[in-house]
Amino acid sequence: MSIDATPKGVLLKADPIANTFRDEIRVSLAGPKPPKLVGILSTSSAPSKSYAEFTQKQCEALGVEFVLRKVGAAAGDGGEGEGVEEAIIEANEDDSVDGIMVYYPIFGVQQDHYLQQIVSPYKDVEGLHFKFHYNLYHNIRYLDPKSLLSSVPPTAPPAPAVEDQPPEGTVKSILPCTPLAIVKCLEYTGVYNKLLPYGDRAYGKTITVINRSEVVGRPLAALLANDGARVFSVDIDSIQEYTKRPREGADPARRYHPRHVAHASVLTLQECLALSDVVVSAVPSASYKVKTEWLKDGCVCVNISADKNFEADVREKASLYLPTIGKVTIMMLLRNLLRLRQYREALKTTS
Amino acid sequence: MSIDATPKGVLLKADPIANTFRDEIRVSLAGPKPPKLVGILSTSSAPSKSYAEFTQKQCEALGVEFVLRKVGAAAGDGGEGEGVEEAIIEANEDDSVDGIMVYYPIFGVQQDHYLQQIVSPYKDVEGLHFKFHYNLYHNIRYLDPKSLLSSVPPTAPPAPAVEDQPPEGTVKSILPCTPLAIVKCLEYTGVYNKLLPYGDRAYGKTITVINRSEVVGRPLAALLANDGARVFSVDIDSIQEYTKRPREGADPARRYHPRHVAHASVLTLQECLALSDVVVSAVPSASYKVKTEWLKDGCVCVNISADKNFEADVREKASLYLPTIGKVTIMMLLRNLLRLRQYREALKTTS
Repeated sequence: MSIDATPKGVLLKADPIANTFRDEIRVSLAGPKPPKLVGILSTSSAPSKSYAEFTQKQCEALGVEFVLRKVGAAAGDGGEGEGVEEAIIEANEDDSVDGIMVYYPIFGVQQDHYLQQIVSPYKDVEGLHFKFHYNLYHNIRYLDPKSLLSSVPPTAPPAPAVEDQPPEGTVKSILPCTPLAIVKCLEYTGVYNKLLPYGDRAYGKTITVINRSEVVGRPLAALLANDGARVFSVDIDSIQEYTKRPREGADPARRYHPRHVAHASVLTLQECLALSDVVVSAVPSASYKVKTEWLKDGCVCVNISADKNFEADVREKASLYLPTIGKVTIMMLLRNLLRLRQYREALKTTS
Repeated sequence: MSIDATPKGVLLKADPIANTFRDEIRVSLAGPKPPKLVGILSTSSAPSKSYAEFTQKQCEALGVEFVLRKVGAAAGDGGEGEGVEEAIIEANEDDSVDGIMVYYPIFGVQQDHYLQQIVSPYKDVEGLHFKFHYNLYHNIRYLDPKSLLSSVPPTAPPAPAVEDQPPEGTVKSILPCTPLAIVKCLEYTGVYNKLLPYGDRAYGKTITVINRSEVVGRPLAALLANDGARVFSVDIDSIQEYTKRPREGADPARRYHPRHVAHASVLTLQECLALSDVVVSAVPSASYKVKTEWLKDGCVCVNISADKNFEADVREKASLYLPTIGKVTIMMLLRNLLRLRQYREALKTTS
């Protein structure tokens, strides 16, 4: 072996990570009746169509009943998105349906955000309802399933959890699938340290998240910061820092928070990347690339975008590169489906 | 008078329209305790600051208690928007507060949309909570105040209202202030015809709405179409038509709907304007202008943007031009405040 042969970083596929959840889900599925997931496809978008087919295949392999409901342009019966709201309402009302998955984008971020609120939180496998986002942003990890019935945010957050065990009468809050899948990948890769206390296992790690959408980037940054990481949240026009441990020199009474706080960063993207142990990119653009030369040597890079956000030579710098995590995301969706069934059962037994 | 002297259209200020509501609000205010409105200002934006001062003045003139809560950049204590979510939650929990108004934009449409869901629907004077949008889009005009407690959309909409009288046990649903103010202006200017049945008083009118945001343009287009108008909803990349009476040639069973349906239009903006009795523009850009030469002679033009979206010679074509409707919007906000107090009282007496 020549001394010049630089070893490349490892290309890590999603399969081994997804497999760690497959058995758990299979065991939970054992029972008289498989849960039923309805997928609603309302556009002619090819990526949405193949994502729907992918969901179907994964569900069938695990024994989850998947029903694909096509409306509007997807059914050749009307325009893009036509009938999607009616299909959601129908699935909300159908007691045999355990979970609802809507294939976005449909109308654009604003109107899609409206649709995300229309899905009943009891069937929201994607975790996009504002109540779940509220819990995530406020680091509220457990909830009483009955509290989801209320449209008003909880007045007093429960005491922060110190262990990974829900207090009596509560269950874990649903987390949005994609941010949750990323956390699972970071657990698998050892970025999360199990020796640290639950709720602070990313302490000591610096992570850059590129994209601050309300569906992926912002919840992910908050989740990682709530778990102890120092997070740079980057979007087109600003960089913010999310942390539970604010900058040095701050008022000591404000040095540690039960949940993340956000403030504007003075660093550039290049400076953030130079500090970052992990870089997660979720930019929906084929032309956007994170510069390999800006990466910290030995970092972990995770690509969430349908496009490739990292350059072809990313493993010259990254110790681990995860080009796609879709299979892990689906596992999180199915876990959420099982959890939501628990919610609805808890509701039935107590009412 | 020379035969060449073309008369110009009328410049209609908001004052006479706002005044028609002033007395009604004053009468409703008579009582031992004035309602309390909290305004939350969290940015350094000059337009937001002057809008807050304007709200304050209007409230004081009418005897509404207005408390301006400044946080973050507005208080010189942190970044843009810092502390706004905490201030909302505090006002939600404070039983002495009857209404909450947040000065947007703060973080951008996505994160601002999240904040709009955090405001308790019982204090949402702006009508931006998704439950109110849901009712608007579904032409559900009345609600049982208790139903707002639920996070799940109503399963079966009530029978459509035939008169302007809430059925027993219900009150009128809150409508977003700006779209509602525009409807009031169109009532005042006679675009709405009181000889037509309630709920269909814009029948026969064609209206172009430029902008399809989830805060103004789309709810406005839906509201006008639910009231019988044929509406062209225009945004940067598409034109849609909203109507209760779909195009000719459609399946007769689908010729009339209890609420609007939307479909893509094949018309250009120029063709829409040529057909339009009313043009409402809400484009947040100083450079955007509706071309006067494209307007239908004698139409009504309403500018909603903080910028001037119509050309200086708009009244060469428009019979009526409303350059700003802010004073009407404030009246609608105060009406919503009074209605929300009713909601909370109804809740207290029945629980």
